[in-house]
Formats: sequence, C-alpha cells, structure tokens
Amino acid sequence: MHVVVPFAANTPKTRLSDVVSPTERTTLARAMLADVLSAVASTGHVPTVLSTAPLALENVFSCDNLPTTPPELESPREIPVTVDDRPLTAAVNAYLEAATGPVAIVMADLALATPAALSMLFDAGAADGVAIAPGRGGGTNALVVRHPDFRVDYHGSSYVDHREHAAEIGAPLESVDSFRLGTDVDEPADLVEVLIHGGRDGTQSRTATQLRELGFELETTDGRVTVVRTES
Amino acid sequence: MHVVVPFAANTPKTRLSDVVSPTERTTLARAMLADVLSAVASTGHVPTVLSTAPLALENVFSCDNLPTTPPELESPREIPVTVDDRPLTAAVNAYLEAATGPVAIVMADLALATPAALSMLFDAGAADGVAIAPGRGGGTNALVVRHPDFRVDYHGSSYVDHREHAAEIGAPLESVDSFRLGTDVDEPADLVEVLIHGGRDGTQSRTATQLRELGFELETTDGRVTVVRTES
Repeated sequence: MHVVVPFAANTPKTRLSDVVSPTERTTLARAMLADVLSAVASTGHVPTVLSTAPLALENVFSCDNLPTTPPELESPREIPVTVDDRPLTAAVNAYLEAATGPVAIVMADLALATPAALSMLFDAGAADGVAIAPGRGGGTNALVVRHPDFRVDYHGSSYVDHREHAAEIGAPLESVDSFRLGTDVDEPADLVEVLIHGGRDGTQSRTATQLRELGFELETTDGRVTVVRTES
Repeated sequence: MHVVVPFAANTPKTRLSDVVSPTERTTLARAMLADVLSAVASTGHVPTVLSTAPLALENVFSCDNLPTTPPELESPREIPVTVDDRPLTAAVNAYLEAATGPVAIVMADLALATPAALSMLFDAGAADGVAIAPGRGGGTNALVVRHPDFRVDYHGSSYVDHREHAAEIGAPLESVDSFRLGTDVDEPADLVEVLIHGGRDGTQSRTATQLRELGFELETTDGRVTVVRTES
C-alpha cells in the first residue's frame, strides 16, 4: 500500500497563531509530521511525504532527546518527498490518478496516531472500497482508497461529501472508529489531547516533547482541562 | 459484567441551553439514554440505569417512528433503574463498592455508541485492571473496572486522575481507542457529530431523529461544519 502524508510546508498550523509564534508553529508542525511518519514506518510501510515545498526530513526529525530516525528505517532519507505546490485536494487527486493499487492518505497533524490505529485503518475497507477515519466536525483525517475512481475533496464537511461520492461510484465505505486518528491538531484546545495522550503507548511523542519544551502544560479550572503556557 | 449507565434525570444537558429549551433538553437527554441502552442491550448485556431520580423507561424509549423497546429485550421494564441522588462520583463509587465482579460504567450521553464500540470496551483491559475510553479534554466517557480497589473521580481531568489512581493501586490500565465512545454530547458543537454519524451503522439513532425533528441540520460555512436550527 502507498501511504501518503500531505504536508503544508509554508503555512503551518495558522489556527495556533494565538498561542505560538510562526517559528514555533513550524517546529510543532514538523514534530507532528515526524510522529506521523514514525508511526507509519512502524506499521511496516514506507510513507511518502506530499509536500507543498522542498523539505529536508533530517531537519524534521531533529528533536532534542529523541531518535533522529524513525524506527524500521535506516535513515529519514529513505522516506521520499514529492513536491506539489497545488492545494491539498488537487495534489492528492493527482497522486490518486497516477497510483496503481491502494493508497492511504494520512494527515500530517494526527499527532496521536499510533501504529495500532494506523494498522486498523490500513486493514479496513472492502477490496474495491474506501475506509475513512473521520475527524471532529466531519473532517477526513485519514483514508484508504481501493476504488480506482474515488477522488477526494477536502473542502467543507469532507467526510459527508466522501461518503456521498463513494455511494455514487458504488464503492463500499467503511468508517474507522479511532479517537487517535479522529484527533487532528488544529487549535489550541487540541494541544490538551497531545499532552494527555501523546507518547503514552510506549512510543515517544516528539510533539508532546516540543510542547513541554515550549512551556505548555495542562491546567484544570472549574472542572475543565486546558493548556497554559508557563514560559516561552 | 454489570453495565451501569448513570443518568442525571433532573438537570439534563445544561450546556445545550443556548440552542434548546429545558423541555427539549430533557427530550434529547432521554433519546441519548435510549440510544446508549439499546447499544448496550445489543452487546448481550442488560444495563442498569443509575438515575438521580425515579425514571419511567417506557417514556425514555417513546420516540416517534422508532422502536419503543431496545433490541434483545422484551420490554424496557427489563432494564433495572437504581435511584441514587448523590453526585455522580459518589453514586458510582457506591455501586463499585457493592459490586462483585467487573463493572462497566458508560455515560448516558454517548449518542454515537455502537454495539461494536461497546463490545471492544467490554473486552478490553487485564483481568485485574481498568480499561478507559477517554473523551475529549481528558474525560472518562466509559470504563471497565476489574480491580476491586479502583474508585472513580469524575471531577476535572478524570482520565489523567484515573490513570494515576490505577498506577497507585497497581491496576494495569488500557486506553480504548474509539471516536464513537470518545464523543460525548455536551455542547452545541457536539450535535454536528450526531447528525453526521448517528444511525449510520444500520441501527437507528433516536438522538439524530429527535434533533432533525427539532429542526437541526448541518450547515457548511467557510469550510467548517456547524448545526443550524431551521424551525422550532
């Protein structure tokens, strides 16, 4: 199976602007990408990064106190980077059109992704179907495409649109039930999930490590959990 | 296994106040409870409702166009209701103290719960351990307690607290990875999830049906999905 991880190299995580600087957003986006690539590599697949700009993966994997190479790989250089500066939907569809065989598309901000959750996704879906791990708000956080005519459209409620599209082309659709794959890190509230669940399954979470180095920690106020930043 | 579904009969879903009236909140809370009880019954377990006040389950299961009795049961009367007007934590701990054998505690607002997701939870965890399906923000949406000394504390980041408590008493903890069990319906934004995913697996969703009868539907604006209410 081809496993593609799209990455917006130039405009990372703008919805985190209120709590982290542009440079820090780049750091966090790269830490998340490294975590996702490591989790994919641990399932036995070599991912392909579909990046909007050239990207040196050695830099992506450089993070204090953590391995600079994902498990199962000799070097980050083993991971191919395909540059396509078109918007996400167009770039992914070009990949789907060119591909022979099943393709999995895994968003680069699924910082809680584990090998177990990804393996469940990769094994899901009928031989001519589509399997989707939805995110909150109808997002398509990760999917496996085995039907040759299926194309993505990430705008709006993409999960609902993808479900309708699959029905139109006669592709059986399976929904993959995963809290970890359902959690994409877009907004400050999502950082709570990284600090609670990141690196809790025996793997190391570069994203959680970076967040803690940036001074983020959990705070409970009035029975609700948020993140606070104690230093910068 | 004992499966307990705590239910706040008198103060349902106050965080939905901005979008639904008190009467409608009661209707929605009961629809969610009925969906959860049906899903539990479909796993082969007879749930117990742990209610803060007396409750007639016939009324809970009365919903236009939907079966008034959950599958696997002859009548809602088969489901026992235990009344305990203490706060959630105290009531659940009293149940745990009195129980012999494993106990599952499933929140009544897990409107997306399916038999498959609940079966995964019920099968999880070590023989002397605890299994938790976390919700967003560190909540404990559902858990299975097999260690006799484990007690709950639902205040604050209960998932983190429960993880620490399990470690303290030497109970192995397993986290159950489920988007469906991870989605509790507390706030208006959560209604999006019910309208997208409710009743999509061959079962009927009383909650989604009620929401649609109350005039709620999905709306996509600026690429984000929300609910709007078109009639009342």
